[in-house]
Amino acid sequence: MLSEIIKAKAKAYFEEFVGIRRYLHQNPELSYQEYNTSLFVQTKLNEWNIPFKVIAETGVVGLIEGNNPTSRIIALRADMDALPILEENNIDFKSQNEGVMHACGHDVHTTCLLGAAKILNELKEQWDGTIKLIFQPGEEKNPGGASLMIKEGILENPTPAGIFGLHVHPLLEVGKVSFRKGKVMASADELYFTIKGKGGHAAQPNLTVDTILVAAELITSLQKIISRNRNPFSPSVLSICSMQGGHSTNVIPSEVKLKGTFRAMDETWRYHAHELIKKEAAGIAAATGAEIDTLVDVGYPTVDNNDALTEEGQNLAKEYLDQRNVEETELRMGAEDFGYYTQKIPGCFYRLGVRNETLGYINNVHTPNFMVDERAIEIGIGLMTYLGINAKA
Amino acid sequence: MLSEIIKAKAKAYFEEFVGIRRYLHQNPELSYQEYNTSLFVQTKLNEWNIPFKVIAETGVVGLIEGNNPTSRIIALRADMDALPILEENNIDFKSQNEGVMHACGHDVHTTCLLGAAKILNELKEQWDGTIKLIFQPGEEKNPGGASLMIKEGILENPTPAGIFGLHVHPLLEVGKVSFRKGKVMASADELYFTIKGKGGHAAQPNLTVDTILVAAELITSLQKIISRNRNPFSPSVLSICSMQGGHSTNVIPSEVKLKGTFRAMDETWRYHAHELIKKEAAGIAAATGAEIDTLVDVGYPTVDNNDALTEEGQNLAKEYLDQRNVEETELRMGAEDFGYYTQKIPGCFYRLGVRNETLGYINNVHTPNFMVDERAIEIGIGLMTYLGINAKA
Amino acid sequence: MLSEIIKAKAKAYFEEFVGIRRYLHQNPELSYQEYNTSLFVQTKLNEWNIPFKVIAETGVVGLIEGNNPTSRIIALRADMDALPILEENNIDFKSQNEGVMHACGHDVHTTCLLGAAKILNELKEQWDGTIKLIFQPGEEKNPGGASLMIKEGILENPTPAGIFGLHVHPLLEVGKVSFRKGKVMASADELYFTIKGKGGHAAQPNLTVDTILVAAELITSLQKIISRNRNPFSPSVLSICSMQGGHSTNVIPSEVKLKGTFRAMDETWRYHAHELIKKEAAGIAAATGAEIDTLVDVGYPTVDNNDALTEEGQNLAKEYLDQRNVEETELRMGAEDFGYYTQKIPGCFYRLGVRNETLGYINNVHTPNFMVDERAIEIGIGLMTYLGINAKA
Amino acid sequence: MLSEIIKAKAKAYFEEFVGIRRYLHQNPELSYQEYNTSLFVQTKLNEWNIPFKVIAETGVVGLIEGNNPTSRIIALRADMDALPILEENNIDFKSQNEGVMHACGHDVHTTCLLGAAKILNELKEQWDGTIKLIFQPGEEKNPGGASLMIKEGILENPTPAGIFGLHVHPLLEVGKVSFRKGKVMASADELYFTIKGKGGHAAQPNLTVDTILVAAELITSLQKIISRNRNPFSPSVLSICSMQGGHSTNVIPSEVKLKGTFRAMDETWRYHAHELIKKEAAGIAAATGAEIDTLVDVGYPTVDNNDALTEEGQNLAKEYLDQRNVEETELRMGAEDFGYYTQKIPGCFYRLGVRNETLGYINNVHTPNFMVDERAIEIGIGLMTYLGINAKA
Repeated sequence: MLSEIIKAKAKAYFEEFVGIRRYLHQNPELSYQEYNTSLFVQTKLNEWNIPFKVIAETGVVGLIEGNNPTSRIIALRADMDALPILEENNIDFKSQNEGVMHACGHDVHTTCLLGAAKILNELKEQWDGTIKLIFQPGEEKNPGGASLMIKEGILENPTPAGIFGLHVHPLLEVGKVSFRKGKVMASADELYFTIKGKGGHAAQPNLTVDTILVAAELITSLQKIISRNRNPFSPSVLSICSMQGGHSTNVIPSEVKLKGTFRAMDETWRYHAHELIKKEAAGIAAATGAEIDTLVDVGYPTVDNNDALTEEGQNLAKEYLDQRNVEETELRMGAEDFGYYTQKIPGCFYRLGVRNETLGYINNVHTPNFMVDERAIEIGIGLMTYLGINAKA
Repeated sequence: MLSEIIKAKAKAYFEEFVGIRRYLHQNPELSYQEYNTSLFVQTKLNEWNIPFKVIAETGVVGLIEGNNPTSRIIALRADMDALPILEENNIDFKSQNEGVMHACGHDVHTTCLLGAAKILNELKEQWDGTIKLIFQPGEEKNPGGASLMIKEGILENPTPAGIFGLHVHPLLEVGKVSFRKGKVMASADELYFTIKGKGGHAAQPNLTVDTILVAAELITSLQKIISRNRNPFSPSVLSICSMQGGHSTNVIPSEVKLKGTFRAMDETWRYHAHELIKKEAAGIAAATGAEIDTLVDVGYPTVDNNDALTEEGQNLAKEYLDQRNVEETELRMGAEDFGYYTQKIPGCFYRLGVRNETLGYINNVHTPNFMVDERAIEIGIGLMTYLGINAKA
Repeated sequence: MLSEIIKAKAKAYFEEFVGIRRYLHQNPELSYQEYNTSLFVQTKLNEWNIPFKVIAETGVVGLIEGNNPTSRIIALRADMDALPILEENNIDFKSQNEGVMHACGHDVHTTCLLGAAKILNELKEQWDGTIKLIFQPGEEKNPGGASLMIKEGILENPTPAGIFGLHVHPLLEVGKVSFRKGKVMASADELYFTIKGKGGHAAQPNLTVDTILVAAELITSLQKIISRNRNPFSPSVLSICSMQGGHSTNVIPSEVKLKGTFRAMDETWRYHAHELIKKEAAGIAAATGAEIDTLVDVGYPTVDNNDALTEEGQNLAKEYLDQRNVEETELRMGAEDFGYYTQKIPGCFYRLGVRNETLGYINNVHTPNFMVDERAIEIGIGLMTYLGINAKA
Repeated sequence: MLSEIIKAKAKAYFEEFVGIRRYLHQNPELSYQEYNTSLFVQTKLNEWNIPFKVIAETGVVGLIEGNNPTSRIIALRADMDALPILEENNIDFKSQNEGVMHACGHDVHTTCLLGAAKILNELKEQWDGTIKLIFQPGEEKNPGGASLMIKEGILENPTPAGIFGLHVHPLLEVGKVSFRKGKVMASADELYFTIKGKGGHAAQPNLTVDTILVAAELITSLQKIISRNRNPFSPSVLSICSMQGGHSTNVIPSEVKLKGTFRAMDETWRYHAHELIKKEAAGIAAATGAEIDTLVDVGYPTVDNNDALTEEGQNLAKEYLDQRNVEETELRMGAEDFGYYTQKIPGCFYRLGVRNETLGYINNVHTPNFMVDERAIEIGIGLMTYLGINAKA
């Protein structure tokens, strides 16, 4: 059976791909600067005789044709960028690029897709259709590498019938994967407010606009976007996370800056909320005489897993990994630029367990001591290969 | 000496005027309905051969000419209306008009001016000038009897060089009077807000405008009118005193009503504050999508005692009553339509002590058990006479 | 086949049960006063020789035993009470009890259960097990008839393996029913706050506690229970729907009252939120010097449909009504005392479509012109019978 | 006449003291570091044979005895410290100590007191009593040089019957001085709030304490200290002037810091307000689960000019400068450590006009281009001498 062959190959190549993952981990690159990583991926594809193109500066698109190449087009995606975090892990393959770290597991994602590419290519006479390999830049930073690659035509010629992407999951035990239909990740937009007014001496507030008080009123008033304006069944969060204004005890500042994030699981509500946020700020400005510049920096859309493709992926995972290793992913308000793909074609974004409590690999992504149990790589490579070969989409 | 003659007459007529005061107390009339009181005043003036005119429906203006009538014109003013309060005093001359009470001492004010009129008239060959007697309706209720009488020309033909008015003062011991230069009473404007929006079921707030929350935000935001927008040295108060909206636990109401008062001691700030109040409400309406109707019902202006006239009045009081019985009036945010006179001509509004702690006459005006020590009437009549005769203004 | 027999009987008895429904509609009774309705139900059960007991004053529990009575125990539940609403429909069978109306369709619910009882009884030699019929008082009013009947042992001797209840649904077209697993209705608790403090004159706020401002601060601060303290994926609503305090423009009142509702879909969060609400009020009281009495009047729990029983019910409905007439119920923050049953045994609360746009039967429950398409009765009777006979629970 | 002699001397020494002022201006020293300035003062007193003591590290107390030295003790005070401001004036005698500037005119104050010392000493056979000269450090910075010198006994052996201090006033035309009885400057206390709570990801606010929102609620709630808790006639200001918390758009910070100032004109209210501020913060902490550290850093007390001494000073100024050059000082919420003296003995703090609109000397104190019309020095020296000789206190 094909699944047994895949498993055997994934096992056989395990050491090789652990090495690849460690190389990537040691050489992380920030978003949109993945030049070396891109070259590394290109070298590997060349080595395996897989044709590819470079787009969006550092993105790589490979193409593996099986039998009847036009009968079925499936895309598999990995992201390649790292984060501006100083690694604190005490490991042999610690980041050599100080202050940059693969703290979100994109090294593992890229490794899994490379591994799948190698096996898919080796088996290409045993399956039908075409696999499009997407190695993507800049998942961690607006505007998102996915949106750039889509602009450059990644979803055309040919258009995939479905796309799979995975993400390491430090809350899920190694050996397991998890799926969920429908909305699985939130949209994430950044909020920036600059409150301006005539500053002045604290003892003469009547000659000033008290920008500090205006900021306080704005923060308080924005709560109602979530507590009142939102449909109670529509998950959404608005958090103001930074307030900066003034230096001394006795000078009312002429400017206060607020920063925050707005997240939603529904695109209609999302854009309606943007209008409500701007209206709230404009009203408070009018009420107080302050000037308020409101910037809603629109980020990634929601990740909306296609029900059919996700059910298919989940069933294939149960075949490949056994039913007890496939779970339902819990909901999160996190964001992913994979959402750009799911806006265009059926997508399935699933989780790869990397947790190992015994070894203490329990820290969250985006922390300086995030670690993965590397045995996940074997599973990640194998399952992605299996999905690529079997998904009908 | 004239002061001795005045004192003797005030003493001699004491019983007569206590009787007058008790008659007025027993027959109180609400603002602008002082028909019987007006007739009573007219009867008395007729009895003493003092010419008068009736204006503003129930107002009475008498004129007493001394020697050289045009050499000096002084106005003396009393107010005649009572309050919609059910008297709780257990006295012989308790209000016979149930639910109406002279709880602000206007019975005493009218009595003092009648007494002064009688004595001034008897002595009119011993003093120079003209005394204009103003018995005024509706001090307790907008638009204020003073404003009506001024509209009808009370301050013309001839125009007084100064006007005196007194008010009983339950915090000041009987036997004493008090004066203060400059701003002595506040302007008082009523605030009415109606907050309207689409009501609806409490479980679907997103389909409504939460008028209750909008009202709460408005109340909170209005604090800054006083805490920030006002010059710290300008006394001013904004109080929301009534909130009414909704009936049930689970229906968001389509309307909430707020009522309150705004007080100031400075006319420029006062009108600027009106604009700020309206701007705050309009801004919150814009921010929330509610409709807010804001009504600032402009009431009495500040009472601004003329410095020179007040100093003169105070010095005359010291002559007449002895220095130790003349005090400085403390500041209050109360309001008086006497302010309309001080906007036009020099005015002096002073206080007549009526407190008697031994007898328990300590309750504030506008309470159902307000009482005065009637010995104040003798002082009130005498001093008003003395001011009328001596003030040069 | 049994389903054909049931359909035939439901069709044959249609006129009879429309008559029953109209009688009930014409004779509505308020919660806990369903004496006549109870007697009517008892009479019918007697007529059909179905044994029953009266409990909780007006509740009726019937028992129909099929073959092997202990092999399978299923409960079917209907509620009998009406609402204090003045009916505005212009119909022959309009409420004869002025001001009381079956505006929530409990007349239909009782009719469906009576119809099911009759048919189940007639067919009792063709099915296994025991059916417990629950005719319940007081669904519309705390503490909920369900809680009273459970206290009196309705779920014991024997304990049902599952319970079904239906509710008319004016958003669902007649002919259809809808189901949903898991949480389908919210808990609903009433909130009462009394804010007390020293009242006083508006011009001397420093001598008072401004209860109005304290109320405003409380309302605003409570927003964070929903906007911040709640898990973004846990649907919940907190609405303050009534504020009452003060009468005049210039007296700060010594008491303000707030009323509202708190709804949740998760019992742990619900009780945690109660503590947060009390803590918020207590903190604001401490901050301001006001006294705040907080009462959280705990109402119905969430209705938590058992997954297996609901899946079974839904599948049986598809068999009986055809797949295209069975939908997924949308989520609502409404409340139902059926939740008390689902706390104890597996339950399935489903919806019966009664909407007819052509006839204008589109008005929501709890409105004075709520109408149902009576053809729903035939479906309601038939499906409830079918569930009673077939559910294995 | 003595006043003519004083005027002649003040005129004769004008150039000398302009030189002294320019030397001081060129060599400014920060609070409590006035070592060179102190030495300069000591050198001058030595030069004129005026005995002195150094106390509080850089403070200098001189003593000039006239006839009957114990018959009358008067203190004259000047402050010597400069501010951490980079001077922007383009003048010959610009500050040589970069970043430090006599931007509050203490160079002029010290010069005037030195000039008065010289003349008083020269004339000491023509007046009665003792003059205590107080050259004080650290007026610009807590705890205030005045408090230090008082602790070291400056107001004992002998205790002055009255103390005079002057301050340059850029709103008052050169040639004029101004006085005011009673409260003339505010108390000034610094407010520091640190709001702490469990930070965390913006998308999971329920796992955090939203310190930013707590800060906003605190700022808003503190408005009521001024708008509600304060007697409307008691000038007072509370301004939050700095808010600092958080850095990113999506991490709720574990700490927010607020800074501000509280000012009052009444010492009872001042300390009561401190309690209210702490109570408000503690209540909000209890309401929200945040920890709030509140520090009220108590600063200078109100400057409370003694009525009699101020009337005497004002009358002496009218004698010396002519009535038309003596004005009433307007009220300000600024602070001065001269308040420590007025807590202990009768004091009179008056203003010396230094404004010259023609020359553009109109900038406020504490600005980098503050300038004085030096002709004020002649008046300052002369009037201080005249007060020293004539005040009976």
